[in-house]
Amino acid sequence: MKIGIADTMFARVNMAEAALKAVEQEKKSKGLEIQVERYTVPGFKDLPVACKRLFEDFNCDAVVALGWCGAEKIDEQCAHEANLGLMSVQIEAKKHILTAFFHETETNELEKQKKIAWNRAFDHALNAIALVKGKEELSQNAGQGVRQGYENAGEIEA
Amino acid sequence: MKIGIADTMFARVNMAEAALKAVEQEKKSKGLEIQVERYTVPGFKDLPVACKRLFEDFNCDAVVALGWCGAEKIDEQCAHEANLGLMSVQIEAKKHILTAFFHETETNELEKQKKIAWNRAFDHALNAIALVKGKEELSQNAGQGVRQGYENAGEIEA
Amino acid sequence: MKIGIADTMFARVNMAEAALKAVEQEKKSKGLEIQVERYTVPGFKDLPVACKRLFEDFNCDAVVALGWCGAEKIDEQCAHEANLGLMSVQIEAKKHILTAFFHETETNELEKQKKIAWNRAFDHALNAIALVKGKEELSQNAGQGVRQGYENAGEIEA
Amino acid sequence: MKIGIADTMFARVNMAEAALKAVEQEKKSKGLEIQVERYTVPGFKDLPVACKRLFEDFNCDAVVALGWCGAEKIDEQCAHEANLGLMSVQIEAKKHILTAFFHETETNELEKQKKIAWNRAFDHALNAIALVKGKEELSQNAGQGVRQGYENAGEIEA
Amino acid sequence: MKIGIADTMFARVNMAEAALKAVEQEKKSKGLEIQVERYTVPGFKDLPVACKRLFEDFNCDAVVALGWCGAEKIDEQCAHEANLGLMSVQIEAKKHILTAFFHETETNELEKQKKIAWNRAFDHALNAIALVKGKEELSQNAGQGVRQGYENAGEIEA
Repeated sequence: MKIGIADTMFARVNMAEAALKAVEQEKKSKGLEIQVERYTVPGFKDLPVACKRLFEDFNCDAVVALGWCGAEKIDEQCAHEANLGLMSVQIEAKKHILTAFFHETETNELEKQKKIAWNRAFDHALNAIALVKGKEELSQNAGQGVRQGYENAGEIEA
Repeated sequence: MKIGIADTMFARVNMAEAALKAVEQEKKSKGLEIQVERYTVPGFKDLPVACKRLFEDFNCDAVVALGWCGAEKIDEQCAHEANLGLMSVQIEAKKHILTAFFHETETNELEKQKKIAWNRAFDHALNAIALVKGKEELSQNAGQGVRQGYENAGEIEA
Repeated sequence: MKIGIADTMFARVNMAEAALKAVEQEKKSKGLEIQVERYTVPGFKDLPVACKRLFEDFNCDAVVALGWCGAEKIDEQCAHEANLGLMSVQIEAKKHILTAFFHETETNELEKQKKIAWNRAFDHALNAIALVKGKEELSQNAGQGVRQGYENAGEIEA
Repeated sequence: MKIGIADTMFARVNMAEAALKAVEQEKKSKGLEIQVERYTVPGFKDLPVACKRLFEDFNCDAVVALGWCGAEKIDEQCAHEANLGLMSVQIEAKKHILTAFFHETETNELEKQKKIAWNRAFDHALNAIALVKGKEELSQNAGQGVRQGYENAGEIEA
Repeated sequence: MKIGIADTMFARVNMAEAALKAVEQEKKSKGLEIQVERYTVPGFKDLPVACKRLFEDFNCDAVVALGWCGAEKIDEQCAHEANLGLMSVQIEAKKHILTAFFHETETNELEKQKKIAWNRAFDHALNAIALVKGKEELSQNAGQGVRQGYENAGEIEA
């Protein structure tokens, strides 16, 4: 199994480190053989081409795309464009891109920003590995209100 | 006939169960042979790749895509991106994806959330089966103000 | 000449009837031979796949896509997604899809809703037929402020 | 050289006439041989298919797409969809579509509307011809704050 | 290595000059052989076709797309459409387009406008060259809060 990690210079946290930690954890705890390819770009709008190359030129089975979105309206617009590009690339490749973007509109406390960004990158790296295993690997958690970067919301009680 | 059911861990209701119930109902009441394939992903932005795989790798004739959208503006943005991805996949496959998303902006009462999400998933699974049957299967209800998850609005009286 | 008519259960007016009336009028008044294929789907987001099938599997030369958009913001979002899908399908087919959507934000008077929806479907069916005839069929009306569903705005006087 | 002119019945000014005037001016003043193909559609959302046909079926080297956008929010939404379609068509053709849309939000004075729409169509027809000549034909004016339909903004002084 | 520079007449600063300066600096300081191709269009919505031609007809390895966005809402809408086109072109080419757009909403002080536009074009030309070198060329700066046109935001301290 080969996981791609695409990250940016724009981000204010080294989110790729978090994703790499998640991969190491899976390798140790479950004895999985997982190779990693990394690709760093200036900002999130450069991630789609990076992901396409990770799929086609570096044979990744899934990619974690790590981005950081500023607090201005124009930043959200750019995030939207980046996300549409990532959508297009993953559909063409028929392989999953797990998008872990931190948005500064979520909180302006730096410590929390770092924590959310880190956890989200970590959690989505685990998701990427699970999705490579198979289409029902995550079905036991379906409808459970699972979140990445925050506490889970949980299933609504009957 | 093979129906795909793509659902998420993010949702707070097990909407796939509702879709499965609808399939069972159709099998019993109309004696139809319907196979089901399930694919669970983290969130709705991962549904398009799941649907493409259900069409191409698992030979589904139609897919029900079950999603849950949070109450924040960024959630609606993501839902939009997911929907554009689902649009692209169904056009490429020339097969219908019935999109059943519950949006938390519809109501914040948990009981109602569960009911709407459940009913919408159920109704769209029935629609998926009808559309596989043929292009005029639903024509008797055209212009009747039919809704999924709510009461029908009905046709405007003359 | 073969015209496709794609309509929805969601609409509160049987807009396909209006389109069919327009086709009948053209057949009678101009002696044209026009065949019709109909395809009914749950809502407007299902129209793009219907239109693609009408082009590819039923050999339509042009399609009238009839939709109804609710008054909520999320409805307009869905209409946008439907329209982008219809855009993509018609470009791929290199054949026109005349999109006749009624939006509840135009008016909440039921009688007016019905009238606008009906007239728009009727007018766009005529447009579909004209565009199949040739690229300059409508040139005599270019820049004349022609509207569908409302009175024409007219050309701005010198 | 063959220039396509795609226009609409919706517009309240015969913008195609302006584009044709620009072509005539270039033919006379520079002795260029320029052929023209015209295609008229109901509204701007029908322009992308018209442009694709002008490229593929009528061998145009560049197209001027002339549109008129009403003052309502839904009109701007439709203009956006039309523009995305035109973007898609020109990328696929690898040939330029010069988009000259007048927006009623620019001004509600009819005389000004007519003037802006006319000038924009005229200027973009000249641009279309220049771009067919070569990729550096316009480089002498790069960064000069050139506008179509209004006075030029000019370069920012040092 | 061949870098494409696509710019506009609309811009109020000759951003291509800044990009050319960056290329010259890299050639001198690092002894790199870098060829340049330039393509000038009217406005940023014409950049995607220019970039596609720079990739396919002029063999560029990466392109810097230089644009200028006015202060009105419609300008931002057009920038969005241009960006989606540039996204589509770079994904298809599997080569990076570094998008350096200045937005008048950033500041209305002319001197600052010029400085930001110039620096952003310069910085992204350097990024384009780095990305052609390889996928981990920028990894040493990952997560460092690097900005183009402004001071870097820096990494969040532990």
